[in-house]
Amino acid sequence: MPEASLILHHYWRSSASYRARIALNLKGLTYAIEPVNLLEDGGQQHAVGYRLINPQALVPTLVHDGHAIGQSLAILEYLDEVFPEHPLLPIEPLDRARARGIALYIASEGQPLMNLRVLQHLEQLHGFDSDAKNAWVRHWLAISFTNVERQLTDSARTGAFAMGSAPGMVECCLVPHAFAAARFGLDMAPYPTVSKIVDNCLVLPAFVSAHPGRQPDTPAEFRLSE
Amino acid sequence: MPEASLILHHYWRSSASYRARIALNLKGLTYAIEPVNLLEDGGQQHAVGYRLINPQALVPTLVHDGHAIGQSLAILEYLDEVFPEHPLLPIEPLDRARARGIALYIASEGQPLMNLRVLQHLEQLHGFDSDAKNAWVRHWLAISFTNVERQLTDSARTGAFAMGSAPGMVECCLVPHAFAAARFGLDMAPYPTVSKIVDNCLVLPAFVSAHPGRQPDTPAEFRLSE
Repeated sequence: MPEASLILHHYWRSSASYRARIALNLKGLTYAIEPVNLLEDGGQQHAVGYRLINPQALVPTLVHDGHAIGQSLAILEYLDEVFPEHPLLPIEPLDRARARGIALYIASEGQPLMNLRVLQHLEQLHGFDSDAKNAWVRHWLAISFTNVERQLTDSARTGAFAMGSAPGMVECCLVPHAFAAARFGLDMAPYPTVSKIVDNCLVLPAFVSAHPGRQPDTPAEFRLSE
Repeated sequence: MPEASLILHHYWRSSASYRARIALNLKGLTYAIEPVNLLEDGGQQHAVGYRLINPQALVPTLVHDGHAIGQSLAILEYLDEVFPEHPLLPIEPLDRARARGIALYIASEGQPLMNLRVLQHLEQLHGFDSDAKNAWVRHWLAISFTNVERQLTDSARTGAFAMGSAPGMVECCLVPHAFAAARFGLDMAPYPTVSKIVDNCLVLPAFVSAHPGRQPDTPAEFRLSE
């Protein structure tokens, strides 16, 4: 099937969108990007047209030959099933479980607590000011990186990347999580294994072009020059 | 391999533990239960011994022939790969993506915001009283059920269960989420499709024996008599 049949509906700064871009790039797939601005029009993800392709009103959505798929980790699993080259998951069930366990930990225990919608709710209904929101985010970031660091250092499977010699599903989640950490000013010094893996990723073309600073909808002040 | 090699480390009331119990039951597997009390000893999930099998310090952990697997959805995927009978996921990639998308939505957008550790943090650091905590939980429960209801009613795939005629990964997540909703007093009337699917599940033996009211560590006051 032609690669031009892949469309990613995303937001430049969303961690979940960033995961999907990395995965598509790691697989060497060509895709079109359709921006969904979470800050404009009361959140374009709530528009009726967008909800037709994603009833969860979230980014990203991958549309493949007209079929819409939501949830970043479901997109990664789908890509691995339909485009098996450059696998995101290892082969053995226990290895797959370990990779999924780390990815799911970041996606379901680390990141949801610092989503834009959660921060907006804490501000609007519970009176959190900027300092309180930043403290909240850094609290959950620190816990999540502490646990991921422990899990990575505990295992002989960890090498240049979480599962050995190539990046995959774990790195699709870890790199956007580290991007959020930098944005909220978290000191990464206590997490040397995480930091080393992230550094190993950031020089790879798949991660370079997936970076939030290099998207069609990146605002000028956040755009990376190179 | 002998079924007695499966041990589930769980907490009776944890949604993620409940998911794993349903999945094991749907597959007809026999397993031993090891309770981990999240409220005693400052949280038994933080004990050094438990962290050896689960560095994320979370429940559940499935130990299969001495190999530990964390994160409920990774456990479900693992069970489907290693014990393919009574599949939790459909066969076609797009169907699998839909089932995973709903399950991940509940597990990563709905449930993490109402975890015990989040509620404890809101109380201890941000002064949330009981009313504020309940309002917080009901807010996120309502959003998540609204979106799941929309996703289920939008699709011709929805039948007696989310993917047709048998429960699977979606129901492993949906039923514990509805249990949390009942606990926090959410009115389920606006979600008739969700409610119907949950009702269809609750009469099945796999769901009956997985219920938090029927576990070895269920406190007497929460124990179901039948």
